[in-house]
Amino acid sequence: MADAIAQQFVQQYYKTFDENRAGLGSLYTDSSVLTFEGTQHVGPAQIIEKLTNLPFRTVQHAVTTRDCLQLDPQSLLVSVIGQLKTDDDPIHGFTEVFVLKQFGDSLFIVCQIFRLALHNLPT
Amino acid sequence: MADAIAQQFVQQYYKTFDENRAGLGSLYTDSSVLTFEGTQHVGPAQIIEKLTNLPFRTVQHAVTTRDCLQLDPQSLLVSVIGQLKTDDDPIHGFTEVFVLKQFGDSLFIVCQIFRLALHNLPT
Repeated sequence: MADAIAQQFVQQYYKTFDENRAGLGSLYTDSSVLTFEGTQHVGPAQIIEKLTNLPFRTVQHAVTTRDCLQLDPQSLLVSVIGQLKTDDDPIHGFTEVFVLKQFGDSLFIVCQIFRLALHNLPT
Repeated sequence: MADAIAQQFVQQYYKTFDENRAGLGSLYTDSSVLTFEGTQHVGPAQIIEKLTNLPFRTVQHAVTTRDCLQLDPQSLLVSVIGQLKTDDDPIHGFTEVFVLKQFGDSLFIVCQIFRLALHNLPT
């Protein structure tokens, strides 16, 4: 159950990110926190501003591993390792962690930590 | 405050791991969960059995990045990217996520997700 929710969330999150980053806004609440490469952004406005101003035109995420643990009946911890390609740049590895909370039928991001891996894949 | 706790925890955790894995047992409670390369281990006995049976004699962890977020007044989310070297093997990247909970003066691991990065560092 938790795994299925995490799988669907992760798939949808990166699909929306790659097609239309601004469309992620409804996943965040006023107290949601994104730590992006060590810098904190709070609430949907700050978070979407950060994501839409990232300096690339196109991006494609591919998920390599996804782990999920239930923290409490409403909360999930999801850890993702993947690869991303922006514009004509080389492929980078990345790590992303989400804490998700279910309110009724909706799922929100409580907090999120993003890091590029510090080394590129061998080409 | 949260950052200082996370920093001290991470430093102490990997120091103990590298010197004496069995010594980590007191950090886990009966409901603690370790997801290690996708396989779940619950409680101190199972977790320490897994860690002490990993197939290497020596290991050294080095932390590259550490991010920390407060989940609630007692709970911290900590995400680590690092490198590890076992025996005479090449260096591997790894990702580890911890949820920590403070009870009085003590810190326990609620859950933990470990993954080796799927690619080696360029040498």
